[in-house]
Amino acid sequence: MNTYSSRLLEQCVNELAKLPGIGRKTALRLSLHLLQQDPSNVESLSHAILEMKNNIRYCRICSNLSDTEVCQICDNHKRDKEIVCVVSDIRDILAIEKTAQYNGVYHVLNGIISPIDGVGPSDLNIDSLVERIAEGEIREVIFALSSTIEGDTTSFYLFRKIQDHKVSVSTIARGIAIGDELEYADELTLGRSIMNRMPYQNAVK
Amino acid sequence: MNTYSSRLLEQCVNELAKLPGIGRKTALRLSLHLLQQDPSNVESLSHAILEMKNNIRYCRICSNLSDTEVCQICDNHKRDKEIVCVVSDIRDILAIEKTAQYNGVYHVLNGIISPIDGVGPSDLNIDSLVERIAEGEIREVIFALSSTIEGDTTSFYLFRKIQDHKVSVSTIARGIAIGDELEYADELTLGRSIMNRMPYQNAVK
Repeated sequence: MNTYSSRLLEQCVNELAKLPGIGRKTALRLSLHLLQQDPSNVESLSHAILEMKNNIRYCRICSNLSDTEVCQICDNHKRDKEIVCVVSDIRDILAIEKTAQYNGVYHVLNGIISPIDGVGPSDLNIDSLVERIAEGEIREVIFALSSTIEGDTTSFYLFRKIQDHKVSVSTIARGIAIGDELEYADELTLGRSIMNRMPYQNAVK
Repeated sequence: MNTYSSRLLEQCVNELAKLPGIGRKTALRLSLHLLQQDPSNVESLSHAILEMKNNIRYCRICSNLSDTEVCQICDNHKRDKEIVCVVSDIRDILAIEKTAQYNGVYHVLNGIISPIDGVGPSDLNIDSLVERIAEGEIREVIFALSSTIEGDTTSFYLFRKIQDHKVSVSTIARGIAIGDELEYADELTLGRSIMNRMPYQNAVK
């Protein structure tokens, strides 16, 4: 006999339990929750998943997720197309957009160079970035990658690839997070934040 | 402009975020995970959810979830049909089945009497339990409800409903959980476990 009294329930639990961070207990709880919902609600969930999977596209220019060939950001004439912020993941775009501090466009690498995970430069959207820069309309490239060995490696690799082009290259500031206490900061961050100290007027403006 | 660059992504996030215990951040993570999967995997998830919702049934006898009119437990001739264990939820059946200590059948109330949540006796599968008992083939009814005020109220209500029938009524043992230290047990549990002490030979057999 099965653990579950229904094969249909078991299949639903199995499928939900394949999702990251969802174990069998949670999957069962979600399945039983769905059984108590209105059929139309369950249908819209199922439909939304399939619709997204089948119809979503990647922006031809920056590889951001999009419903159209060119994403809303690349297509927005108010955005400064001369500044490109390079991120590893579309979640980073969402995070940066939330700050409301950036008015340029993006380029999604779709990953980060990580030999341990078998991810090399050719697996990332690097060629398309170089092509964008080669077109000559970009003034500045900002690396917004994680402050890890992989992130630094990727930034360095990108820098070597584009250094011959006439663009200024910057990276987002590293330092003590706002609200953090100095005594709890790690030595590396604190050390770098002293090395890379900035004029007081710039920091508070 | 939207938070998300794609309406399709946003809809999927919205739908997933309706599930209990899943916030918008998790929903986004799940959506992006699904986008990286094989289309066939996503289809089987979406399909399994709909199939379950549309085709699952409740056992005609005990209200357990089932693919057929009568569930695997009620339909199993090796189970003792004269003992009925009353539970509030099908998850309780799974928990009891896992112990492999019970060979009777079940009755799922599908909730518990809880005036605060607006759940009265008429919202539960109580009439069908009384009918099953009135048929006269049941020897013993075991209440396996939570040890809360609601659980105790429900047990008492059920007891009053079935006390005139010729069945013995029992409730699962309350006491100190196996592996628990006495000094950390709450007073009520410890007090009851002294009141309801049992012959040593029974406890260790």
